[in-house]
Amino acid sequence: MSKKGQVKKAVLAYSGGLDTSIILKWLVEEYGCEVVAYCADLGQGEELDHVPEKAKKTGASSCHIVDLKEEFARDFVFPMFRANAIYEGRYFLGTSIARPLISKAQMEIAAKEGADAVSHGATGKGNDQVRFEISYYHFDPAIKVIAPWREWDMKSRTALEAYAKKHGIEVPTSKKFPWSSDRNLLHISFEGDILENPWAEAPEEMYVLTVRPEDAPDQPEFVDIEFEKGDAVAVNGERLSPAKLMAKLNELGGKHGIGRVDLMENRYVGMKSRGVYETPGGTILEEAHRAVESITMDREVMHLRDSLVPRYAAMIYNGYWFAPERLALQALIDNTQQTVNGKARIKLYKGHCRVVGRDSATDSLFNVDFATFEADEVYNQADAEGFIKLNALRLRIAAIQRSAKK
Amino acid sequence: MSKKGQVKKAVLAYSGGLDTSIILKWLVEEYGCEVVAYCADLGQGEELDHVPEKAKKTGASSCHIVDLKEEFARDFVFPMFRANAIYEGRYFLGTSIARPLISKAQMEIAAKEGADAVSHGATGKGNDQVRFEISYYHFDPAIKVIAPWREWDMKSRTALEAYAKKHGIEVPTSKKFPWSSDRNLLHISFEGDILENPWAEAPEEMYVLTVRPEDAPDQPEFVDIEFEKGDAVAVNGERLSPAKLMAKLNELGGKHGIGRVDLMENRYVGMKSRGVYETPGGTILEEAHRAVESITMDREVMHLRDSLVPRYAAMIYNGYWFAPERLALQALIDNTQQTVNGKARIKLYKGHCRVVGRDSATDSLFNVDFATFEADEVYNQADAEGFIKLNALRLRIAAIQRSAKK
Amino acid sequence: MSKKGQVKKAVLAYSGGLDTSIILKWLVEEYGCEVVAYCADLGQGEELDHVPEKAKKTGASSCHIVDLKEEFARDFVFPMFRANAIYEGRYFLGTSIARPLISKAQMEIAAKEGADAVSHGATGKGNDQVRFEISYYHFDPAIKVIAPWREWDMKSRTALEAYAKKHGIEVPTSKKFPWSSDRNLLHISFEGDILENPWAEAPEEMYVLTVRPEDAPDQPEFVDIEFEKGDAVAVNGERLSPAKLMAKLNELGGKHGIGRVDLMENRYVGMKSRGVYETPGGTILEEAHRAVESITMDREVMHLRDSLVPRYAAMIYNGYWFAPERLALQALIDNTQQTVNGKARIKLYKGHCRVVGRDSATDSLFNVDFATFEADEVYNQADAEGFIKLNALRLRIAAIQRSAKK
Amino acid sequence: MSKKGQVKKAVLAYSGGLDTSIILKWLVEEYGCEVVAYCADLGQGEELDHVPEKAKKTGASSCHIVDLKEEFARDFVFPMFRANAIYEGRYFLGTSIARPLISKAQMEIAAKEGADAVSHGATGKGNDQVRFEISYYHFDPAIKVIAPWREWDMKSRTALEAYAKKHGIEVPTSKKFPWSSDRNLLHISFEGDILENPWAEAPEEMYVLTVRPEDAPDQPEFVDIEFEKGDAVAVNGERLSPAKLMAKLNELGGKHGIGRVDLMENRYVGMKSRGVYETPGGTILEEAHRAVESITMDREVMHLRDSLVPRYAAMIYNGYWFAPERLALQALIDNTQQTVNGKARIKLYKGHCRVVGRDSATDSLFNVDFATFEADEVYNQADAEGFIKLNALRLRIAAIQRSAKK
Repeated sequence: MSKKGQVKKAVLAYSGGLDTSIILKWLVEEYGCEVVAYCADLGQGEELDHVPEKAKKTGASSCHIVDLKEEFARDFVFPMFRANAIYEGRYFLGTSIARPLISKAQMEIAAKEGADAVSHGATGKGNDQVRFEISYYHFDPAIKVIAPWREWDMKSRTALEAYAKKHGIEVPTSKKFPWSSDRNLLHISFEGDILENPWAEAPEEMYVLTVRPEDAPDQPEFVDIEFEKGDAVAVNGERLSPAKLMAKLNELGGKHGIGRVDLMENRYVGMKSRGVYETPGGTILEEAHRAVESITMDREVMHLRDSLVPRYAAMIYNGYWFAPERLALQALIDNTQQTVNGKARIKLYKGHCRVVGRDSATDSLFNVDFATFEADEVYNQADAEGFIKLNALRLRIAAIQRSAKK
Repeated sequence: MSKKGQVKKAVLAYSGGLDTSIILKWLVEEYGCEVVAYCADLGQGEELDHVPEKAKKTGASSCHIVDLKEEFARDFVFPMFRANAIYEGRYFLGTSIARPLISKAQMEIAAKEGADAVSHGATGKGNDQVRFEISYYHFDPAIKVIAPWREWDMKSRTALEAYAKKHGIEVPTSKKFPWSSDRNLLHISFEGDILENPWAEAPEEMYVLTVRPEDAPDQPEFVDIEFEKGDAVAVNGERLSPAKLMAKLNELGGKHGIGRVDLMENRYVGMKSRGVYETPGGTILEEAHRAVESITMDREVMHLRDSLVPRYAAMIYNGYWFAPERLALQALIDNTQQTVNGKARIKLYKGHCRVVGRDSATDSLFNVDFATFEADEVYNQADAEGFIKLNALRLRIAAIQRSAKK
Repeated sequence: MSKKGQVKKAVLAYSGGLDTSIILKWLVEEYGCEVVAYCADLGQGEELDHVPEKAKKTGASSCHIVDLKEEFARDFVFPMFRANAIYEGRYFLGTSIARPLISKAQMEIAAKEGADAVSHGATGKGNDQVRFEISYYHFDPAIKVIAPWREWDMKSRTALEAYAKKHGIEVPTSKKFPWSSDRNLLHISFEGDILENPWAEAPEEMYVLTVRPEDAPDQPEFVDIEFEKGDAVAVNGERLSPAKLMAKLNELGGKHGIGRVDLMENRYVGMKSRGVYETPGGTILEEAHRAVESITMDREVMHLRDSLVPRYAAMIYNGYWFAPERLALQALIDNTQQTVNGKARIKLYKGHCRVVGRDSATDSLFNVDFATFEADEVYNQADAEGFIKLNALRLRIAAIQRSAKK
Repeated sequence: MSKKGQVKKAVLAYSGGLDTSIILKWLVEEYGCEVVAYCADLGQGEELDHVPEKAKKTGASSCHIVDLKEEFARDFVFPMFRANAIYEGRYFLGTSIARPLISKAQMEIAAKEGADAVSHGATGKGNDQVRFEISYYHFDPAIKVIAPWREWDMKSRTALEAYAKKHGIEVPTSKKFPWSSDRNLLHISFEGDILENPWAEAPEEMYVLTVRPEDAPDQPEFVDIEFEKGDAVAVNGERLSPAKLMAKLNELGGKHGIGRVDLMENRYVGMKSRGVYETPGGTILEEAHRAVESITMDREVMHLRDSLVPRYAAMIYNGYWFAPERLALQALIDNTQQTVNGKARIKLYKGHCRVVGRDSATDSLFNVDFATFEADEVYNQADAEGFIKLNALRLRIAAIQRSAKK
C-alpha cells in the first residue's frame, strides 16, 4: 500500500447515494486517508439535507454542501448558449457543462482544506472521468486523482452491495431504475439498460422532467423571452436571475413535453453510446436565442460563428472548458453577442417549440428606417447585375477555359 | 433599342402565371425576339396541362414542359441531404436547391433551340436572380441574361395589371394571397405581406403542405426509413424512387403538421428577410438520416463534416451548386456516406418528429460483437488514466508555468 | 449632368501624380463641385512637400496631408501580424491593409469638411476600389462615391495625357516604369506590363526595397526581435515605436534582399492577377512572431487560430477590415496573444531569413522547471499506452466491424 | 512472465543499430518468443546489406528487407503534397508520413508470418509510438503491441550498453552524434542534446542533406517542374518516377542549401519539442506545386482547401493517416487537383528557393483567350459598382442602425 499510503486527505465528490458512499468508505479503508465529502447543488432537485450526516456516518471527516445553481446558470450554461452549442446536432451538453464547475468547487475545497487528493465516482468507460480530471489538473497540476472505478476490482452490483453490507453502508431498498441518470438545472440524462438496444424506444417511465407530449395541454402556450448581449434576462416580462430563469423555462417546457432527445453519440474515449436526454428549458432557450440573433446579428458573423460551433461543442463535451482554446473561442463568441439584444416569442405545444416572432428595439438589422435616404441609395436593383456578374466571373472564365479545351 | 435588338431568341422560365406571362409579352415587345417558353415540373403540384396553350397565346413560339421530379430528388435533394445541409440552423434550402436544376434544363433547351438569351421572373432584390444567373453563366459564359424586373419601370402590381390588360393577358380573378410563395417536391416557401412584421405570427391560412399541429391525429405514427450510402431508399419497408419517397414523406409529414419553420434569414444580396417554410418530408428525412449516421459514422468524420456544413449550406443558398468548391465539398461528403447504411424509426406527432430507434445490419459501430476478443483487449478501463494524463499534459504544463510566474 | 450636379464638395485621395491630378481636374469640370485634396503618408517614401501647392494649382480648394505611419503600423499592420495573416500562402497583404486606413482618414476629413462625396483613383478591375468603398460606406452609408475610372471614357494613357495637356496639368517627363506599383511602410507591390506573362521572371530593375540577393552581404547577420502580447517592441535590444520598428526591419531586410515574392493571386472581383511584392521587414517579422508563438502558445490554440487565418486573410484582402466578422476574429486572435511574450533570433542571408533561436522569460511552455514535481507526475511514459489505446479505439472498432463484414 | 509469455512470434521494426538490436535480444529474452526482424527502405541512405546477418546473429529467426521507396513517394508523400500540408506553418511532416507506411508493411509481414505481436523502438515520450501503434491497430485491432521503451527499466545509455555487452551485442565504437535523427526520401530530422536549449543555434555539423547556404554555388540555378493532377512528373523536362523525382529534387536542394527548418513544435503527447529538419526536395516541390495551383485552381476551392490544411497536417502529424477522416479530407483534396496541370520555374540560391514563373497549357485560368467574346461581356468595369454596393449593403444597414441608435 506504499503508493496508496501517500495520500493524507482527499476531497470526494459525494452524492449520498450508494456508489459514492462505498467510495467514501473504500478511500478510508484503502488509502487510510482523511476524506472530506463535498456535494454540489446544481439543481439536481434532490434532498441534500441529510447528506452531511450520511457522509459523516460513512467516515467523512467533514462535508461541504455548495449551492452552485446561480454560478452554473450564469457562468457555464449561459456562455455556452451564446454559441448555440449542441453536440453532434442534438445533445445540449447538460452533463458536460456541469462537470467543470463541480471540479472547480471541489478544487477550491481541496485548496482550503489542504487536501492532496481528489476523487470522483465516474467510471472508467465514460466521458465524465475525463471532464473531472482535466479540470482538476487545470487547477492543480500536481493533485493526486483517485478514480476508484478504474482501480478497484468490484465489477458488479452484487460486489458493491456485498461491500456495502460488510461495511455497514445502507443500501436503498426502494426499487431503483435499471438505467443511470444525471440531473441538473439544464437537463437530465439517461443511459444503460434497455437503451443499449439502439432500436428500442426509450420507455415512457424513464422521463422525469417532461410530461408525455400526448399528455401535454391541448392548447398551445406562448412565451416571450428577452435577451441582453445574448443572455436571457426575462420571461414574459419578468426579469429573473439566470438560475431562476432556467427553472422557469424548465417548468414551461416540462409542462408541454418539450426537449426530449434520443441520441447515439460518440464518446471522447472512443466508443458510441446511446443517451436519452430531457432539456426542456434549454430547448426553448436555444430556439429563442437563435431567433433574436436572426434579427440582430450580421450574416458573416453568424456564418463564421456557426462554422466553429461543432468544434466548440466538442471542446465542452470532451472536458476542455478551462482550456485556452475554449477561452479563445469564447472571446469570439462573446464579441458576436454585443448586439444580441431583443426578444422572441416561442410557441409551446405537445413536445415541440418554435419561434413565431422576434424583434429588437435597439439592434434590429431588419427593416430599419430608410426614410432619411432615397430608397435607391440603399438598394438599387440594378446593382444586382454587377454583383452577379462579378461573382460569376471566375465561373465564366472556367467555362471559357473548359470549352477551349474541348 | 440597339442593345435590346441584339437578341434573336430567348428561353424564358415560364410558369403560366401573371408575372411570367407579362414578361413573355414584354420580351417580344421590347426585344423583338422569338421567345421559347419553358416550364419545369419539380413537383410544385400545379396543373401544367394548359401552360403550353397559354404560352403560345401570349406570344411564345413554342413551349417545353420538362418533368424534372426524379432528377431533382436524386441529383439535387439527396446529395444535399447527405450533408444534413441547413441554412442558418433552420432553413432546408428548398428553393435554393431547385434553382440550379431549373437553370440547367433551361440552358439545355437554349442550346437545343439555338437561343442566344435566357430570361427569368426573379426580382432584383432576391436570391433567386443570383442562383439562376450564376448557373446560366456556368453552362454558357456568353449567354445573354434578361432580368426584366431589374430592367423595366413597372414597379407596382397596378402597373403590371395595366400592362396585362393593354396586351390582352388574362389577369386571374380568383383572390390571390398577398404573400408570394415557391413550391416544389421539397418544400413551399412564403414571404412578404404580413411576414414583413417580424413579430407577427404567420397566419394559419398561409400553410399549404401541413395541417395545423392542433388538427393532426391524436395518435403518434411511427415510420421506418432505410438508407443506402446516405440516401433514403425505402419507407416502411417499401422501396421507392427518390421522388416517390419524397412524396411519401411529404404526405406523412403533412398529415402530422411537421416541418413548419419561421425564420429571419440573411439574403446573399445583403439584407435580412423573413421567410416561412413548410418542409414536411425533408424534416423527417433529416432526422432519420442523422440517426443512421449516428450509428454508422466515425466520430472524427462526423465532426469534420459538420464543421463544413454551414459553408456548404451557404454555397447552395447563394447559388453555387455548380461551382467547383461545392463539388470539392461534395466529394468529401459523399466519401463520408459509404458506410451510412441502415434504418431509423421516427415518431411523428403533432408538429414534431423525433428518432426513437436506429440500426444498421452491416455498418453499425455500436455494440459490435467483441466475442472474439477478450473484453480487456478492446477496452481496458486502466487505459483511461494514461489517456487523460496525456490529454491534460499541456494544461498541466501551463498551470505549472502560471504558478511559477506568480 | 443632373446626377453629377448633386455633389457639392468631394474629398479626393490624392497623390500628386498624373492620374489623381487628372481626376482632381475632372471632378471640378464634370461635377462642378469643390474638391478637397487629401494625401495620406503611410511611409511611401515620396516627397510630399509640394503636394499641397500642386493640388491647389490643379483646382483643389484645400489639401490635407496626414501622417498615418504610426497609426498604420500600430493599429493595422500589427493586429494583422498577430494572426500571421498571409493571403494564398504568400502575400503579406501590404496594399490591402493600407486601404482601410486611407479610407478612414479620408472619411474623417469628409466629415470635418462637410463633404458629401469622396473619390479615389482605383480602377474598375482591381481590388482597391472595393477596399476603399466598403470602408467609406462603413463610416457613412449615405456617402456619394465617385470612381472616375468606372465612369469616364478615357481608356488609354494617350487619352489621359491629352486631357492633362488640355487642362494644363503637368505630365512628368521622367521615364516612368511601365508597371504600376504601390508602396507603404509594409511593402511595395508591382503589377502589369511584363508581369502579365506568368512565365516571365520579374526584371531585376523592378525591385525597390531590396537588393538583389546575389548583391547582399556575404556574411549572414543576426537580429533579435522582442515581442509583448504578440507585438514586436524591440530590435536588437532597442525599443522602437511600431512605425520605427517597421522601418528598422525594412532596412535590415532590404540590405539582405529579403521578402521578394512573385505570385499569381485571385482578386476579389473574380480574375487572377500576377503580382510581385517586396516585404522585407514583414517577412522577418512573421518569422520572428511565429517563433515566439512556438514556445509560448498552446497547441490547440495555435491549431484553431491557424485554421481561421485563410479566412481572416481573405477578409483583409477583400476589404472587410471594418466589418464585424473581422472584429470577431480579431477578438479571438488578440485573446491568443496574451502569452506571446518573448524574443526570437533571426538569421538574415542572401534573400532568406530563418529563425535560429527563440525564448520567453515569462511564458515559455517548453522545458519549464519540473523540479518541484516528481518527473513521473508530469510525464509517465506508461501513460502513453492508454493514450494510444483509447485514441485508437474507434479505429479498432471499425476494423473489427470491417472484418466481421467480410 | 505470464503476460509476456503469451506472445509466440513478434515482428520487430529493426534498423541494425544499437537500440533495435538490444530490443531484438530483449524480446527473445523477456518474451521468449520468436522474433522476425523487418527493415523498411524508405531512402534513409544507409547500408542495409549486412542488416539480415546482424539480425540473425542477434537472435532473429528471419529478416525482411523491403524496398518501399516508390510506394512511399507515390502513395504517401505525393498525396500529402497535393494539400501543401505543413505542420504548424513550418514542418514538412517527413517523419510523420513515413510511419504509417512502415507500419503497413510490418503488419503485412506479421500477417504473412502468422505473428501475434509487433514491436518498435520508439520511446514513450514521442509521437512515433502513436503513429506506429494507431496504424498497427487499424490493420489488426487485436494485435499485441510491444513498446520496450515503455516497458523495460533501462533508462540510460549506460544501462543499454551494459545490456548489449552482457548479451554480446556489438556497440558501435565510432563517435555517434549526441542528437537523434530520422532520415528518409523526404527529409532528415534532428532532436535532443544542444537543441534542448531553444535559444541555441543548431550547429553546422548537424546538417546532412544540405550544404551550408554560405557554401552553396554563387550562381542561382533554375529548375522547371511539371505537374499532372497535382503530382510532380518531370524535372527540367525529364519524366521521373516519384521516388527518382524526389531524389533529384533532394540533390538540387541539397546543393543549394535549401530546406533547413528550425522549429519548436507541439507533440501529440502534449509537450513542446525542438526539432531541426532538412527537407531540400520537399521545399522546392511545395513552392512549385503552389505556383501551378495559383494559375489553375479556382479561388474558392483554394481558400476552402487551405482552411482545412492545418487540420489535415495535424491528422498526419498525430498518426491518423489510415483514419477515415484523413480519407474524407483526401477525397476533397484529390478532387481539387484534377486541374492542377502545368509547370513552374523555381530559382534556387543560397538556402532559398522561390517561384519566378508558372504556366499551364491546358488549365490556366489566367489570361485565357477572350477573343470570341467582347471584352465587356467578360468584364465590364461598371459591374464593379453593383458588386461593391451589394457586398457593402449589410455594412451600410448596420451603419444606419448604429447612427439611429445614437
